[in-house]
Amino acid sequence: MAAATIDVAGIGNAIVDVIAHADESFLAAEGFAKGAMTLIDAARADALYDRMGPAIESSGGSAGNTMAGVASLGGTGAYIGKVRDDLLGEVFRHDITAMGVAFQTAPASTGPGTARCLILVTPDGQRTMGTYLGACVDLGPEDIDPAVIGAAQVTYLEGYLFDPPRAKEAFRKAAAIAHAAGRQVALSLSDPFCVGRHRDDFLHLVAGEIDILFANEAEICSLYETEDFDQAAAAVRGHVAIAALTRSAAGSVIIANDKAHTIAAAPVARVVDTTGAGDLYASGVLFGLTKGLPLPTCGAIGSLCAAEIISHVGARPEAALDKLVASAGLV
Amino acid sequence: MAAATIDVAGIGNAIVDVIAHADESFLAAEGFAKGAMTLIDAARADALYDRMGPAIESSGGSAGNTMAGVASLGGTGAYIGKVRDDLLGEVFRHDITAMGVAFQTAPASTGPGTARCLILVTPDGQRTMGTYLGACVDLGPEDIDPAVIGAAQVTYLEGYLFDPPRAKEAFRKAAAIAHAAGRQVALSLSDPFCVGRHRDDFLHLVAGEIDILFANEAEICSLYETEDFDQAAAAVRGHVAIAALTRSAAGSVIIANDKAHTIAAAPVARVVDTTGAGDLYASGVLFGLTKGLPLPTCGAIGSLCAAEIISHVGARPEAALDKLVASAGLV
Repeated sequence: MAAATIDVAGIGNAIVDVIAHADESFLAAEGFAKGAMTLIDAARADALYDRMGPAIESSGGSAGNTMAGVASLGGTGAYIGKVRDDLLGEVFRHDITAMGVAFQTAPASTGPGTARCLILVTPDGQRTMGTYLGACVDLGPEDIDPAVIGAAQVTYLEGYLFDPPRAKEAFRKAAAIAHAAGRQVALSLSDPFCVGRHRDDFLHLVAGEIDILFANEAEICSLYETEDFDQAAAAVRGHVAIAALTRSAAGSVIIANDKAHTIAAAPVARVVDTTGAGDLYASGVLFGLTKGLPLPTCGAIGSLCAAEIISHVGARPEAALDKLVASAGLV
Repeated sequence: MAAATIDVAGIGNAIVDVIAHADESFLAAEGFAKGAMTLIDAARADALYDRMGPAIESSGGSAGNTMAGVASLGGTGAYIGKVRDDLLGEVFRHDITAMGVAFQTAPASTGPGTARCLILVTPDGQRTMGTYLGACVDLGPEDIDPAVIGAAQVTYLEGYLFDPPRAKEAFRKAAAIAHAAGRQVALSLSDPFCVGRHRDDFLHLVAGEIDILFANEAEICSLYETEDFDQAAAAVRGHVAIAALTRSAAGSVIIANDKAHTIAAAPVARVVDTTGAGDLYASGVLFGLTKGLPLPTCGAIGSLCAAEIISHVGARPEAALDKLVASAGLV
């Protein structure tokens, strides 16, 4: 097996976030489940944009955010995802390549525009999302470059990829290439409703193909259809080599073999916007794993990255994460 | 004279900001004067965007930012400025109307795209700007709605309007309408280099047509071609009814008739990005003036608004300014 030249290859829905403040009554009026991601069509996205408050635009996408974090930590990364050849597509491409992440996926030249996620941040810092998948529906197995996946120590896949029709084929092709090359495959469960939409697929994947699993409490409970976190954590043990389960302010638990490591959340002066918390936690854990660091250290780096991202609006790091981690004495 | 139904009507270059972190050496390599605004053409904007770091997009424009601040304070506002009928133009329109500011200027349907300001924020929080004026060059006197200007207690003009070719005609038409209706005209000098480009125009305006002047230390010194702030402050006295002169962390001085009120800066835990500091200071002072508040209170509201804007990335307020001002006991 050749040495990996890429630490992490991420595959996801390539999305530009449109982030606005909103109050709880606005969420209720729009029919959104607070804290969740709802898929919306172009017409609903336009209507929602008309009604929502002033916004900022920032590149997003769960795996895109994670790869930006890996790069900011000093890791080498590649990203696969589908934008259109439009202005938002250029923005997405600029932002991820400017982080130093390789992004070679050809943009769609026809069809729907680059995906947008309309994010409503409530006064408590929680984010609720309406996603118009746009050009993401065009991602297919032809977009998976075997050279990239074969060269990556970990291929990281977001569960949201099961929403567009052909991306799951891309997902499966990538996982097969990675394993054939002796590499590891990581999955994030993304969202409890996403888990609900694709539970059978995810259960088969987790039991058979995933080496490293990321999930929050609601997602892992949804996967195993239980309301008891400990029961869900027990169920996942044995299915994957490593399960990193996040619990918001209560930190996280990393389960590997017979051990469970409890990781504290890093302190945050004020939670401004939780968008990207899970994505950046994954950045830290994946970076640590690819550097061969002990699991508690991987988790602590994840906590630190998550704390940075929730201290400001937007899901891409503002601070240089490598310096934060060095200041904290973690590397 | 009919009662004013609009507190402030702002006229400016309608711009979307593209904000990235950069270090001093990047500014030097790009040939930018730190802290200033440099006009760039489309090709240079594209080349700079390719080289700069990951960014966020946020509606901007000096007077646009000021109007967003006036609206957040609870004032009624209107905005006049030129976008194209493209995606960035839609973003600009959405963001200012979502604040509650009336924005009726027809977009250009041909010609260059909506203006972009590429903003480089250095680790000290200072911002340095490269502006591609795009569709702003199409703003002309035909875009000035006499009904809007006649109904506004104050018409606020940004000095940057003297950069595109026909906007100064719009500027002069608006000032004439405002004065004919018995209203006041305010001007921001915008930037010391902008003052250098248009010093004669600005000197005539300040001496003859401007009631309320906003300038920072470098701008007022550039206007009167002196290095001595006190000398510049003495020169402006008598030219305008009110001159609000900002001095960064040293606060501001508001000169009116024979009095000079010294206003303290509001405390900021960490200066993240100074973009919009002057614009939001103007929001506070203009809001206070239209509500008939004493000048020291107007200045204190300006300081508070400036402190909010420099505590985060971007030049549009994240917090509800009316609540901040109420919490501080200023209204």
